[in-house]
Amino acid sequence: MSQPSAASVQMIGLSGIPEVRPGDDLAEHILTAAKASVPLQTGDILVVTQKIVSKAEGQLVDLATVTPSALATDWATRWGKDARQVEVALRESRRIVRMDRGVLICETRHGYICANAGVDASNVPGTETVCLLPVDPDASAAQLHTAISARVGFAVPVIISDTFGRAWRNGIVNVALGVAGMLPLADYRGQYDTEGREMHVTVLAVADEIASAAELVTGKLDRRPVVIVRGYGWTEAAGRGADLVMDPARDLFR
Amino acid sequence: MSQPSAASVQMIGLSGIPEVRPGDDLAEHILTAAKASVPLQTGDILVVTQKIVSKAEGQLVDLATVTPSALATDWATRWGKDARQVEVALRESRRIVRMDRGVLICETRHGYICANAGVDASNVPGTETVCLLPVDPDASAAQLHTAISARVGFAVPVIISDTFGRAWRNGIVNVALGVAGMLPLADYRGQYDTEGREMHVTVLAVADEIASAAELVTGKLDRRPVVIVRGYGWTEAAGRGADLVMDPARDLFR
Repeated sequence: MSQPSAASVQMIGLSGIPEVRPGDDLAEHILTAAKASVPLQTGDILVVTQKIVSKAEGQLVDLATVTPSALATDWATRWGKDARQVEVALRESRRIVRMDRGVLICETRHGYICANAGVDASNVPGTETVCLLPVDPDASAAQLHTAISARVGFAVPVIISDTFGRAWRNGIVNVALGVAGMLPLADYRGQYDTEGREMHVTVLAVADEIASAAELVTGKLDRRPVVIVRGYGWTEAAGRGADLVMDPARDLFR
Repeated sequence: MSQPSAASVQMIGLSGIPEVRPGDDLAEHILTAAKASVPLQTGDILVVTQKIVSKAEGQLVDLATVTPSALATDWATRWGKDARQVEVALRESRRIVRMDRGVLICETRHGYICANAGVDASNVPGTETVCLLPVDPDASAAQLHTAISARVGFAVPVIISDTFGRAWRNGIVNVALGVAGMLPLADYRGQYDTEGREMHVTVLAVADEIASAAELVTGKLDRRPVVIVRGYGWTEAAGRGADLVMDPARDLFR
């Protein structure tokens, strides 16, 4: 498993995960669905969408319990938003990066920079409930990694993914929030390219690329919230999704 | 082919592409390599790394011919760079987005925002040559799409990819520069999520996700510059990679 790339990698979307409820044993849901269709094999990586992790962890807010602040009310009125949902996004933020033309880009308390602090109402039952990001996506990934690896008898890295917007480019893409069991970055510095020249600045965010790849079979409108990534040569290591978040001191686009 | 997602998608890295030289028939190289190992099938997408496209198009600069400007010389001296290579990056730019702490983020004349305007010395023969981005990656993609589709007898979308850095996150990821034969964005607005709620802002940059997925089998150190993406349900359409570049008027991070 030491090769950083392979000739063929397959993404397999798992159907059959039930609607996840707070307190559910998500590892059990995933293993049951996998056993019934595509049993896990040595070398597989699991990509799990944030939404079902947050639901299992009870990271849901009933909007009826939220009293919006003056800022949330003003912003929501101006841009046709639900003031209570804006308020939840503000509470999930440690810094507002941009608040302009109806777009609210937040730095979450984890350090992720994303729209509305990751607070989302899609694919959540009821019209009065919103879903937050997990409290600690790396801890969530580690818990799933440990539970699933123990039950199948081999190490299965876990990536918890969400769709984020980007600066400069249209559309959202899947990225890795939490990572456990593999390195999220492949560091080619000090290695040599095909011409024998040392590569100076090539550090690939492979966990983000794997998350993006998984989205191709997840489907926004479908119920395939878990993807098996088969054939990618990962290196077993204590990686963390937090390693993908740029140190503010280095970030030129804060 | 109207499904925007599938239960299984495979990335297959093509070996056997020779070192590409200016004027080469790249479509012929790709088809020869595919025939010898993994023949193209209906529904396949091809992801082609920018480097071999640029080489075939002769987008190479001999640094011995470059006289650096005062700005390039000053910056290179300060940060231990090759002043001629910095000069080439400045010439490829229509705007400098950030120039700080040894990092040069440019807006290329195409509108891409990336380090060093995409000018790159890795995997280029000789120590005195650098590679530029294609003049018009959408035109390059369209040319390959037309040539390859004609020869195999069915439509094969083409994505020309490169690795770009991102704001806020560590590491580089593969993105789509040029696109031909499919839509680069999957627009879910007006559709309904699994709870029957209309999705308001979900536009997925699927061409970027496909490019990222392909990188998992390309490998920076390997000679697999072409990837077959098999099993992804694309929609035949006149898409362009330029559609992935955010309109400056909407961009909050210029």
